Amino acid sequence: MSFDLESYIYDVPNFPSEGIIFKDITPLLSDSDALNHTIDQLVEFAQPLKPDYVIGTESRGFILGGALASKLECGLLIARKPGRLPRETVQAKYELEYGSDVLELHSDSVEDGSRILIHDDLLATGGTARATESLVKQLGAEVVGLAFIVELSFLEGRRHFGETPIKSLIQIDDN
Amino acid sequence: MSFDLESYIYDVPNFPSEGIIFKDITPLLSDSDALNHTIDQLVEFAQPLKPDYVIGTESRGFILGGALASKLECGLLIARKPGRLPRETVQAKYELEYGSDVLELHSDSVEDGSRILIHDDLLATGGTARATESLVKQLGAEVVGLAFIVELSFLEGRRHFGETPIKSLIQIDDN
Repeated sequence: MSFDLESYIYDVPNFPSEGIIFKDITPLLSDSDALNHTIDQLVEFAQPLKPDYVIGTESRGFILGGALASKLECGLLIARKPGRLPRETVQAKYELEYGSDVLELHSDSVEDGSRILIHDDLLATGGTARATESLVKQLGAEVVGLAFIVELSFLEGRRHFGETPIKSLIQIDDN
Repeated sequence: MSFDLESYIYDVPNFPSEGIIFKDITPLLSDSDALNHTIDQLVEFAQPLKPDYVIGTESRGFILGGALASKLECGLLIARKPGRLPRETVQAKYELEYGSDVLELHSDSVEDGSRILIHDDLLATGGTARATESLVKQLGAEVVGLAFIVELSFLEGRRHFGETPIKSLIQIDDN
């Protein structure tokens, strides 16, 4: 089935700050067919990579993280903002268009050598995904792929991940 | 299959503040069998209620919200903390054990009369779920059920929801 997923993403100018065009995925989520098409496409990409875990990044990476892990018969890890995970964590700092932030992952999350699929809703500069990759590597695990709904291709985030397979369902080529 | 889901929930004392025992669901999420068992049990509860949408509450309600919506062939709505949804919203305030907060939902989320399943990881006093119910009602929709992983039964959160069906997979009877 051909499916115009992009028509389910709304552009909201100047959100959260002046000059940024926010990609609002809520219309895609609230449409059952678009939601399942999105999940199925990402699962089709990820299945051959044989991940042991999906890691979803707070908070929009949580939304499909559970569904992807479930369909891939993986565990789900959650990378959270500071102070939200209750036990011992590893940390990674990342730069944002507007400041910096930190992500955390429970230190006992995975076995050494585990195969990890990174998922988030959006690939922009790649800062969040690189921080997530750093968390995974700090635990001795391996990133085997990255799966996004939307990619802002003009920000060239994917150049940071070498040969690691990256899937995004919608590419935005210009701002 | 019998499954001791409770063994996948870790008690973390004095988090996020003194005297609170935090229920850490990350070990349940990271175990593929426990994750899928949890999803399947909640789907089995929700299916006969014929929801049009699942609403997941920021941020731990997002984690299984997508999976539930996908399996139920529903749309997914997300109730978010203030300032995170980019378009016009309705709001509802709620009290926490430690302060108060607000949840928002996009005003154009649902059609009048839609049937909504509320999902969150935890039912405690019911404050968050009541705020979510308020959002749904402000849009002219109906809450047909509530589905949680863990319920702190001793806080009696379910008394606020009358005859509406409520499912929680793990009941904690004392603090």
